[in-house]
Amino acid sequence: MTGPAVLESQRVRQDIRAGRITGTSRGLAHGFVQCNLAILPKEYAFDFLLYCQRNQRACPVLEVTDPGSPIPNKLAPAADLRTDCARYAVYRDGVRTEDRTDITDLWRDDLVTFLIGSGISIDGALENAGVPTHKDRWVLRTALPTESAGPFRGEMIVTMRWLTAQQAITATQVTSRFPFNHGAPIHLGDPAAIGADLKAPLFGGPVPPVPDGIVPVFWACGVTPQSAAENARLPFFIAHAPAHSFITDLPAQALMNA
Amino acid sequence: MTGPAVLESQRVRQDIRAGRITGTSRGLAHGFVQCNLAILPKEYAFDFLLYCQRNQRACPVLEVTDPGSPIPNKLAPAADLRTDCARYAVYRDGVRTEDRTDITDLWRDDLVTFLIGSGISIDGALENAGVPTHKDRWVLRTALPTESAGPFRGEMIVTMRWLTAQQAITATQVTSRFPFNHGAPIHLGDPAAIGADLKAPLFGGPVPPVPDGIVPVFWACGVTPQSAAENARLPFFIAHAPAHSFITDLPAQALMNA
Repeated sequence: MTGPAVLESQRVRQDIRAGRITGTSRGLAHGFVQCNLAILPKEYAFDFLLYCQRNQRACPVLEVTDPGSPIPNKLAPAADLRTDCARYAVYRDGVRTEDRTDITDLWRDDLVTFLIGSGISIDGALENAGVPTHKDRWVLRTALPTESAGPFRGEMIVTMRWLTAQQAITATQVTSRFPFNHGAPIHLGDPAAIGADLKAPLFGGPVPPVPDGIVPVFWACGVTPQSAAENARLPFFIAHAPAHSFITDLPAQALMNA
Repeated sequence: MTGPAVLESQRVRQDIRAGRITGTSRGLAHGFVQCNLAILPKEYAFDFLLYCQRNQRACPVLEVTDPGSPIPNKLAPAADLRTDCARYAVYRDGVRTEDRTDITDLWRDDLVTFLIGSGISIDGALENAGVPTHKDRWVLRTALPTESAGPFRGEMIVTMRWLTAQQAITATQVTSRFPFNHGAPIHLGDPAAIGADLKAPLFGGPVPPVPDGIVPVFWACGVTPQSAAENARLPFFIAHAPAHSFITDLPAQALMNA
């Protein structure tokens, strides 16, 4: 007898829950949507949902759980949000005080989880179109303001990729078709035009001078809502640790535009 | 001297505010996005925003005002939401108790306004593509459940259009490009497959038998959130009156997909 088919996403989450996978989710379960997590008390949930609505390019909300429920009914009904992300970042009063691989003992009945589409989800589509995704990629602060909601505010965080002109065109075409995973670029060309801070990348190491023939291309990044939540200095807030996104059962192609 | 250019949307809103226009917004300011309004106390705003997030096809939220503010800063910064809709429906305990052309004296500091994309916005695009929009159109209840959030719940309300097969294909293509105005059809063909209630249309008059060569095509309708708010039996709730949508300054084409 054979059992029911197990999705690659489910298999990877089982390995994460069992502690067999503890590293980045980048490259895992290609083709399935990955989500950034924002877990916060219901008291702040309206303002945070409103912040996401007002800044959809950076914060595409794909699911919001009911208060206290650790189950993402739509995106991964067999998952447990307390154990199935490889690494969580726990914030207290706006400061990242510890990282965890399991937040079961921190769980509360008033916690609401936001699952926010991650740009990692479309790496597969970019690779299939001949756009490399594993190098020359940085996450940067910018001077672009986001629209605030309640205590949530701050500048847009972007992913910068270095591409050839042809790759930049292809990447624009491909990502435009995934509006619920950050969509089209928000800028291309001169990093200074959006105040991109090349001196202190959040991820990706030092930024060398832009080589001839290379076009920097910028997408809104899912670190933006996390940064806004840090700025809000909530007493308690949990996020996925950067590059350790939650893997859903939703095929990325299901979020494609017509 | 000539003054600054006045948008057609602004001119129409001035006529509405002055009482010179009191009828349907259908056909007015073609090409500008029209919005359904849901105005409710902040106490219910999270659950309602969550209901919209969970049912985006029916409830595409384009803007949410800050509590107490009657100004839609993004969609029509010169407008006043208390006077610039031609007709408002006022609900108390879930019952439509009166219609108003002005809600200034009902305004409260805790009211939050949701501006939700209306299918009326893309009539122009359909007409341009050769799809008639002014006849053979009904709004119907269905048996399709929406996903609830807090007290907001109920079945999906749909717009049914009778089209030729070729028009049905064209209309699917055109509307797919406007995901923030209900997007692609949710069904086509047999009305019974979605439990569409042909006996009691909410708008459009009695439904005759489907003629040969005609395909009924169904889109999620912006009456859905209004119906969910009725079901929630909120003590106080204001909506636009059906077919009297709020006209924004946003060109419908600005919401098009890539």
